[in-house]
Amino acid sequence: MTGEATAPDGGIQAGPLGVGETRLISLREIVDVNGSLLVGEVPDTLPFVARRFFALYDIPAGEARGTHAHRECEQFLVCLRGSVTALVDDGRTRREVRLDRAELGLYMPRLTWGTQSDYSPDALLMVFASHGYDADDYIHDYDEFRSLAGV
Amino acid sequence: MTGEATAPDGGIQAGPLGVGETRLISLREIVDVNGSLLVGEVPDTLPFVARRFFALYDIPAGEARGTHAHRECEQFLVCLRGSVTALVDDGRTRREVRLDRAELGLYMPRLTWGTQSDYSPDALLMVFASHGYDADDYIHDYDEFRSLAGV
Repeated sequence: MTGEATAPDGGIQAGPLGVGETRLISLREIVDVNGSLLVGEVPDTLPFVARRFFALYDIPAGEARGTHAHRECEQFLVCLRGSVTALVDDGRTRREVRLDRAELGLYMPRLTWGTQSDYSPDALLMVFASHGYDADDYIHDYDEFRSLAGV
Repeated sequence: MTGEATAPDGGIQAGPLGVGETRLISLREIVDVNGSLLVGEVPDTLPFVARRFFALYDIPAGEARGTHAHRECEQFLVCLRGSVTALVDDGRTRREVRLDRAELGLYMPRLTWGTQSDYSPDALLMVFASHGYDADDYIHDYDEFRSLAGV
């Protein structure tokens, strides 16, 4: 895979990642003696209405998921348990973030190249998507992605 | 709390619960050597576009959540880890189901009284909601709920 060098990231905090419009968004987490509640809500903490979701778990060490972009679909990733490394790339800049806190979600706009890897054994990754499944929405070729991203 | 007697439920399977329009909906679960993927998509397996979600976890034994109905908001419950007992009540009929499989979600239409209890220590309950937060949408009084439900 081509593209700029990956810039591993240490701690993570809410805000833009410097990769297109990707950003980390704080969810509201309420922890008390009655248990923990995490809330995401359109538009502030869930960036779009979700027409589809995935939950990923029991992912073997060394397995990578993603490695594609979407023409139209936006995604929002929340690692509810464990941790996972998310790579985001807008065709110009590439960055990795370690998602290891449920209260920080990763927003990936359309035309963001992404891969998720290094799942911890207990990782549980929720992905919210703005669109239903459409095979034609997937871009699996990195050069085609860069071209569509106007690079 | 008043209402009809609770009918504890053994095994659960997809289909109507006999309580208004509540039903259990099968999600698509794809399990292979690369890990497990659970998918919900509007309209078949995610009954509405989600404007809000909650994740509930670390709920102490004996704690109950819910115990209210919504005027307009629809909800869809998926227990991703562990198990939880969900009570649903349409004002006429009441039933409990033990949600213990990620691939079966519980759809609760508007005007469904609900309580979630008996969380297992590892339980992780995802709730998708059709509407953003609105305090006025909550009905906390069971008699008012029954009246609004036309009972």
